[in-house]
Amino acid sequence: MRISEGVEWAAHCCLLLDWMGTGEPVSTARLAAGYGLPAAYLNKQLQPLVKAGILTSTAGKKGGFRLAKRLEDITLMDVLTAIEGPDEAFQCAEIRQHGVWADEPASVFRAPCAIDTAMRTAELEWRRALAAQTLAAIQANAELQAPGLRTQVQDWYARPRQ
Amino acid sequence: MRISEGVEWAAHCCLLLDWMGTGEPVSTARLAAGYGLPAAYLNKQLQPLVKAGILTSTAGKKGGFRLAKRLEDITLMDVLTAIEGPDEAFQCAEIRQHGVWADEPASVFRAPCAIDTAMRTAELEWRRALAAQTLAAIQANAELQAPGLRTQVQDWYARPRQ
Repeated sequence: MRISEGVEWAAHCCLLLDWMGTGEPVSTARLAAGYGLPAAYLNKQLQPLVKAGILTSTAGKKGGFRLAKRLEDITLMDVLTAIEGPDEAFQCAEIRQHGVWADEPASVFRAPCAIDTAMRTAELEWRRALAAQTLAAIQANAELQAPGLRTQVQDWYARPRQ
Repeated sequence: MRISEGVEWAAHCCLLLDWMGTGEPVSTARLAAGYGLPAAYLNKQLQPLVKAGILTSTAGKKGGFRLAKRLEDITLMDVLTAIEGPDEAFQCAEIRQHGVWADEPASVFRAPCAIDTAMRTAELEWRRALAAQTLAAIQANAELQAPGLRTQVQDWYARPRQ
């Protein structure tokens, strides 16, 4: 049970796009350079965010990624769901319907499995907490810890690179 | 990001062991029959619960698994941690230390990454909710929905089988 590294990459890239603040599409190569990531794999990881309406992607020489929404309107839950899909981490296989209870009528199993209910209740707490955190709030925390991040990003990208 | 089916299997087997209520070791074959599970694979899935002190295992012809604790003292968090290990689902790779910030002194990164902090905060809510649910409470819910489960289990196991 491990969350894909794409979630970390995608969340950071959203912050980076906001910090760069050009409004112009940013190529995967430039985004990847900002965090020392492999460009082709980053590009693959960001595609689900386009599908989820978090980023827009344009093709061509001057193409790249843009934020489709303000960071205030993107939560960690949005990013996680985009990358990992909407399925819950706990998937009940209803093993209670076999063995001892194999001959019971289907109506017996209308009430949900108590283990499934308990697992889903707990997971809902996690998803609620993810949905309560916007990327804007996370960016604000990062800037509280290290003021000047926006300027630092813009200066770094303004410098010529090999 | 998917929780192993072993968590469902293990939680159900703990309830089953309590319902059987013999206090004697129960073989994997008998446990597996109760939920229609493959015995060899179930045996593999239950080994981490022995290591975690939730079950005890004895070898030999009359060997098998017993509960090492009362269901009141086993939480969903205990079962999940036994099967999935103690690591958090979100593992920060600290990509913020590369690219734009690659030349920063290490001291800059003493403050934790804001994305990592937010992800861990949310995951903690999940783990707290898992730790708040004992197998005894889950068993009580199951019995509320379908009274007589204990008798049903004992009757089923008392009948001769092929």
